[in-house]
Formats: sequence, structure tokens, C-alpha cells
Amino acid sequence: MGIQKKQKRPYIAQQKGTALTAIAAPTAPKAQDRLVATVSDGLARTNRLIKDRMQSDVPVIPALADHLIAAGGKRVRPVLTLAAAHLCADSPDIQNRAALLAAAVEFIHTATLLHDDVVDTSELRRGRTAAHLIWSPPSAILVGDFLFARAFELMVETGQMPALHCLSQAARVIAEGEVAQLSAVRNLDLGVDQYRKIIAAKTATLFSAATTVGAIAAEAPAAQQEALRQYGHHLGMAFQLADDALDYDGDSETLGKNVGDDLREGKLTLPLILTIARTPKKAAFWREIFADDHKLERHIPEIMDLAQSTGAVTDTWTAAKAEAETAVTALQSCEPLRSGAQSTAEDLAGLAYACAERRT
Amino acid sequence: MGIQKKQKRPYIAQQKGTALTAIAAPTAPKAQDRLVATVSDGLARTNRLIKDRMQSDVPVIPALADHLIAAGGKRVRPVLTLAAAHLCADSPDIQNRAALLAAAVEFIHTATLLHDDVVDTSELRRGRTAAHLIWSPPSAILVGDFLFARAFELMVETGQMPALHCLSQAARVIAEGEVAQLSAVRNLDLGVDQYRKIIAAKTATLFSAATTVGAIAAEAPAAQQEALRQYGHHLGMAFQLADDALDYDGDSETLGKNVGDDLREGKLTLPLILTIARTPKKAAFWREIFADDHKLERHIPEIMDLAQSTGAVTDTWTAAKAEAETAVTALQSCEPLRSGAQSTAEDLAGLAYACAERRT
Repeated sequence: MGIQKKQKRPYIAQQKGTALTAIAAPTAPKAQDRLVATVSDGLARTNRLIKDRMQSDVPVIPALADHLIAAGGKRVRPVLTLAAAHLCADSPDIQNRAALLAAAVEFIHTATLLHDDVVDTSELRRGRTAAHLIWSPPSAILVGDFLFARAFELMVETGQMPALHCLSQAARVIAEGEVAQLSAVRNLDLGVDQYRKIIAAKTATLFSAATTVGAIAAEAPAAQQEALRQYGHHLGMAFQLADDALDYDGDSETLGKNVGDDLREGKLTLPLILTIARTPKKAAFWREIFADDHKLERHIPEIMDLAQSTGAVTDTWTAAKAEAETAVTALQSCEPLRSGAQSTAEDLAGLAYACAERRT
Repeated sequence: MGIQKKQKRPYIAQQKGTALTAIAAPTAPKAQDRLVATVSDGLARTNRLIKDRMQSDVPVIPALADHLIAAGGKRVRPVLTLAAAHLCADSPDIQNRAALLAAAVEFIHTATLLHDDVVDTSELRRGRTAAHLIWSPPSAILVGDFLFARAFELMVETGQMPALHCLSQAARVIAEGEVAQLSAVRNLDLGVDQYRKIIAAKTATLFSAATTVGAIAAEAPAAQQEALRQYGHHLGMAFQLADDALDYDGDSETLGKNVGDDLREGKLTLPLILTIARTPKKAAFWREIFADDHKLERHIPEIMDLAQSTGAVTDTWTAAKAEAETAVTALQSCEPLRSGAQSTAEDLAGLAYACAERRT
């Protein structure tokens, strides 16, 4: 278990006595529910768009896409787009554009998951058998390409070139992050800085793009766009750090994917990087097991224990929370908010904390 | 050998006595060289953009991309974009946009090749070992994603939403075509109409998008855009029909890929569809070999002979030429051309014929 539940340290928003003081640990996990309620019309519209635009005359495409999309997921990214737009301004046009961009963001995310699962030969996704195992890796690759292209078609519908600029760049940086992560597999020399660079690219980029295009849909001023971009970035960092902590600290059933998979695949994530750094006498052991998959598999329980006993997992949770706090600080610089959007800002702050201590 | 070299039938352009009469069979293969000369400045600019935008801080990306891109290929698609723009209008701005879009088209093409070769587990591409065999399938998938995203970044630089509209739609239709083709593997019931639908999607779409975005770069009137779209479509059909004929009628060394690969992979292309249709007494044989890869492999020489003796290969070449003629007809409807572009139109017509009888 992560140590985060025992921490009594007040959140930064409370310390600063700002407009976001309402956000405290016990209410944080409900923040996403409240955000979902706030943007419920937009989310319903987004879900209709998702359902509609995954259709194709080629039957495998909606079948495969629906397997993943209907399994749900938390829709965190489209909610972020809708909430960011809501925070900045509101009108039927804005809602329309925000829903198109929210659906585009979800499609890019889904395409990335499909390709990731082929790349990692993952068996489970969202509690279901991964699509490439039910259909085939080629189908998963090509349906990913389909969704990726559909995402750009949705963006084109907004007529907003800045949104296309933001998301095409994001898609490229995500691919760079994925390739960098691939190159980092079994690389015992991977440092914390390189790790952070990789997760910034492969995960935080889509979170920051999600919030930014929300602001773009609302035609928000540059300063608000930038504040929301920073919020999204740090939220994404918190989200991925929590993800990496959960791989050493979670429950396969709750997670909908196998705990220990990162380790099994030789992925150097923060819990493992810290564990290795804190066990200098075991250098030979680390080299040996990362050169031999069977040996690695046999030592997984031992490494999971080491990740706990060295404090590596706890410190990963702490790092996640630090990112959440930075996200909230960025959000505070977003003021003046439009009237009536204060509670949305509070819920976005709460969402950041919730992401940093999520168990699913 | 295809029968096309023996055909003395005059090309449609000659019959019609139009402005395109200069195009005759013996000069046709040189049409691409002349087009390349016409758009040489734009092509140099496009090649610089390609080289520049395949760069990344992640070293695997430029290395893998360069393996494929430096191997050359014929750059048919970017030349089409540049020539289409040149046909419609000329100015520094137009040249700039056309080069950006030509590079985007080439990146989408390269991304598709990378994913295709993973999907088909192809061994050779452009005379070199396929990238996924040198690096890995995951690297090829992700670098494909990178190039795809880069393509959209290039389009955004033009500021032309119609180009983004055209190419995002094209990318989606291509993916649909690829999935449809996958579903059609070993499907002995695949008819000529379904086959044509698949090649229209997976190949002709990018050709028609290439010419259309050239016209868009030149801000050409809708009628010219449509004429060039149709030209590109039929040229692409001719190109793919020739490709499918070459798989039964080509030389592995000249082609830079293995002859017989389509058959080996169980792909139902026109030569095979016609061969099967013309050997009704062999129905049991076809069912048997397509249910057993080893048996199929053993019968490849026999099937290649059948494809020749039944006239299936010849008729595939004939179909390619018919598409080339339709492409030229579409091009003729593109007039009035801007002054000075007549020779470009003639060379585009010549290119269509050259594509339909290419040996490489």
C-alpha cells in the first residue's frame, strides 16, 4: 500500500488560503464525479460523437473500437477538455467545438492504447482481453490508425487551426515518448530525469493538449490557455506517476490490468529506478535478472517487496502528489475566471489530487 | 511478361485529338522524369522538409525513417502534389504550401508502408530489409505514428483547412482499406467489385488526395480541384492494378520486393481473382491450398503459370491501362489551364500511362 493515505499534510491550496481551499483530501476523489456532472451535456454529446465516428463500412473497425471504448475507461481526458472550455467561457458554439475536440482527444488516446498494447503485448486492458488478442495485432494497429485519422477529421470540423496545431504536435510528441520508452527498456542506467522526460512526452502531453484545446474551443486569452496547459501537464505527470506506483502497489482486479507488468516488461519506471538506486550492493543482481526474462519473472515478488521496503513506492506517490500541487498552483494563475466557474476550478484542483492518489 | 508491350492500340488522348495528343507510348515512361524536372525546385524543397521533419531527439526515429525514405522510392505522390499545384497557378506562397503538403503526403505514405510491412510481415521494401526486421515491429509501428503526426504538423503550417480536411479523410479511408484488405485475406469469394473498392481505399485515395491538395495549395477553383481529384484517383487505380499485376509478372530485383508475396500472404488481388474465376473445375484445389500455408507455398509456381495461361495477368494490365485512360480524360476536363502549364498536363497524362505499364 502507498503511504499517501497516512499523510496528514494539508494540501497546498489550503495553505495558501486561496479560492481553492475547499479542496481537501476526503472530497478529492469525488471531484471527477462533480466535473462529470458539470459537463454532463457536453459529455453526452462527446459520447454520441465517439459512438458515431467509430462507425465504418468495414465491420471489424466499430467492433474492435467498441470493445475498448465501451469498456469505459475514466474519460478523464475528454472531461478535461470540456471542463477547461467551461472554465473559460460558455456558448452553444463553444460547447459544440469542445465536444468535437473532446472526442478527438479520446480517439487519439484510444489509438495510442491500441498501439501500446500491441507494442507491449499486453493481455489486459480496462479489465478486458486486449483487442489485439481477440482480433489480431494487425487489426489493432490499423484500427488505431483509423481512430487517429478520425481524430483529425473531428478537429477539422471545429475549423480551429490552433486546435489542430496543438493536437498534431501532441500526437507527434506522444509517439516520440513511446519510442523513447521502448529504447529505455532494460536500460539500468535510465535516470530520474530521463524517466520524467519520457512520461512527460508519452502521458502528460495528451493531458496538457486536452486542457489547452478546451481553452482554444472557448477562444480563451493566451494566458488562460497557458495556465490550463500547465495544469494539464502537471496533472498528467501526477496521473502517470500514480500509474507507475500502482504497478507496484495496486490490485489487478481494481486496475483492470496486471500488476507487475511494467517490471515484467523491463520498463524502468520511478519505483524501479529508485529501488535500483537504493540497493547499490545488488548491482550484479539487477544486471543479471534484466538479462534473463525467466530469472526476472521468478524474482518479481522479491522486487515488489524491495520497492516497498526501500521507500521507492512511497516516494513515487509523493512525487505524484507534488505534481498535483504544481497543477493546482498553475490553475490558480488562471484567474480571473468567468463568473460561475469557481466550482469547476475547485473540482479541477480536486481532480489533480484524486489522480495522484487514485487506486484504479 | 505482361502483354501490354505488344499492344499497338493508340492511347485515348491520341484518338480524341486533344491537347494531350503528344503523349504516346514510347515517351510515356519519361513523363515522370520531365515532371520531376518541371517541379525540381519544389521537390528539392520537399526533400529538405522531409529530411528536416523526420528529425527527433529520439535517435531511433530518424534512423528508422531514413532507412525507408533515403532508399528513395519514386516520390510519385509528392511529385503529383507539386505538379498539380504547378498546373493551376504559381507563386512563392503556392510553392511553399505545395512543398509542405507534398512532404505531408510522403510522410503519410511512409507511415502507411511501415505499418503495412508489420501487418504483412514483409521482408523487403524498396530493395532493403524491411525496417521492422532491422529494428523491431514496435519501433516500426511507433515511428509510423510519429510520421503520421508530423504529416499533420506540416499541413497545419500551410494554414489551409481544406488540405487538412482532404488528408485527414484520406488517412481514415486508407486505414479502412487496409482493414478491409486484411478481412479479405484468403476470402475466395472476394469479387472484382469488392477488390476495386479495397484498392480504391488503400491506394487510390492517397493519389487523389495528393493531386487535390496540390490544387488546394494553388487555391484552384472547385472544378479544377475535382478534375485533379479524379485524375489522381484513376492514376492510383492504374498504379495499384499494375502493382498487383507485377506481383505475378515482375522481377524481384527490379521491384525491390519479392514477387509472389501477395499470393503467399493469401491476398486476393485481380490476377488471382480472375485466375480462380477462370478455373471453375479447380474449386476444391483453391479451397485446399488457401486452408494450408505450406500447400500454398508449394503451388506458387503452378498458380503463377495459371495466372498467365488464363489471361488473368494480361487482363489486369489491361484494366490498369483503362484506368490510365480515364485519368487522362479527367485531366482534359481540367482546362482552361494556366498559360505555360500545357506541357505539365501532357506529362501528367504520360505519367498515368507510365504507371499502368511500369515494371518497377
